[in-house]
Amino acid sequence: MSPSETTYSHPTSAHPPENTPDPTLTSSTASASVEPSSTTTTDTQDAKVETHRQSTTYSSSSAQLSHLTLNLSRALRQFPDFPSPGILFEDICPIFRNPATLNDLITALELFIAPENGGPGKPDLIVGLDARGFLMGPALALRIGAGFAPIRKKGKLPGQVERASFKKEYGEDVFEIQADAVEKGQKVLVIDDIIATGGSASAAGQLVRRLGGDLIGFVFLLELDFLKGRDKLDAPVWTLLTGQKSNRN
Amino acid sequence: MSPSETTYSHPTSAHPPENTPDPTLTSSTASASVEPSSTTTTDTQDAKVETHRQSTTYSSSSAQLSHLTLNLSRALRQFPDFPSPGILFEDICPIFRNPATLNDLITALELFIAPENGGPGKPDLIVGLDARGFLMGPALALRIGAGFAPIRKKGKLPGQVERASFKKEYGEDVFEIQADAVEKGQKVLVIDDIIATGGSASAAGQLVRRLGGDLIGFVFLLELDFLKGRDKLDAPVWTLLTGQKSNRN
Repeated sequence: MSPSETTYSHPTSAHPPENTPDPTLTSSTASASVEPSSTTTTDTQDAKVETHRQSTTYSSSSAQLSHLTLNLSRALRQFPDFPSPGILFEDICPIFRNPATLNDLITALELFIAPENGGPGKPDLIVGLDARGFLMGPALALRIGAGFAPIRKKGKLPGQVERASFKKEYGEDVFEIQADAVEKGQKVLVIDDIIATGGSASAAGQLVRRLGGDLIGFVFLLELDFLKGRDKLDAPVWTLLTGQKSNRN
Repeated sequence: MSPSETTYSHPTSAHPPENTPDPTLTSSTASASVEPSSTTTTDTQDAKVETHRQSTTYSSSSAQLSHLTLNLSRALRQFPDFPSPGILFEDICPIFRNPATLNDLITALELFIAPENGGPGKPDLIVGLDARGFLMGPALALRIGAGFAPIRKKGKLPGQVERASFKKEYGEDVFEIQADAVEKGQKVLVIDDIIATGGSASAAGQLVRRLGGDLIGFVFLLELDFLKGRDKLDAPVWTLLTGQKSNRN
């Protein structure tokens, strides 16, 4: 089988100016459960109660999740004008550097994808995007007992591959996944650090489906909400932390 | 502080021809403890007995390590002539795809670095190389309670960085690490999937030391022994699995 190729075109919006307020201090659209709960806490650890994120009933794991995501948000750093003027870069490295916040991150992701917290449930396989998706994917897979498969830039993976192109801010890029990376019918979760325009995530989702995977959703650490990347994705999207809300003050 | 730059030049030898025998089925130089033990097994789990690798006394964790590395070697695949003719590519992806071997990998690495198995002991920080070092680094750091810091290609990391150039098979590459990634005196272990000529690992080690880190060693999954990359490294080198022994039959 030769790799097939599809091009996904997604126009890119401008990034926020450097004096955007710290986005980690604002509230999140995707994480009502992240805010400290003043409502009744019920233990649903074994009850498998499906709680919608906007519900006013919080589980104990939801309260724990709130605590963890607050720690993680505080560990993030922002660098204005990196890698180019007008872009506010979200630096996730401090989370990994500290053993406590690294553990918080993987525990938070584990809780976040649990059905009782409104998540997609445990996947059979986590697919991570080159290269920052590699930082979280295998560690989360190990924690929850799933497998991990990488999606890489063109020419990095040996053997038969599926291939998809997507538009980037400057030019085009090509993603590949090994043709035998996904078993037919496997529940697959795509993970990356940040969703911006959604081009790369969309291509990743298409690759998973082309291999017969059951794409149960996308999980990101952060979201640049104003770029509306999630509108490009045709599977549920979960973002753990508060993202940048706009490209204006 | 502006990034300082040093160039490390390491000539590259040829890679093995495609009909090289499966290297995972041969014995390893760096892993006497990896071979099934026929000698007395003593329980040193709590005893913290320092056992040299060439010792004839094996601990129970050493026997477990043998079992795990055998599983891992069997999961590896070789692709001849990838990415270019004459190169036998070692594909580590199947290890990650299967939850059982992913767990075997991280457990094996955890045992492998333990002093009772002749390893360097627990580091404060694991430094992983872009991008395949990211697949193992954070997961191992999480398991042992260490932090993780990435070394990336030029222009990927924000803020002040230390920078080192090194020779690759074709041309030169530049590695960067964030200037505040390593605290002075921290015990640092550098991790990557494969050591070939040792150029990238050598540059990584220099970056760690320039930031004041106590470089306790390098850990690799595989080694292309015939390229003698470990000769370029001035800290102890551990290779978990049997590597390619020669570039000839």
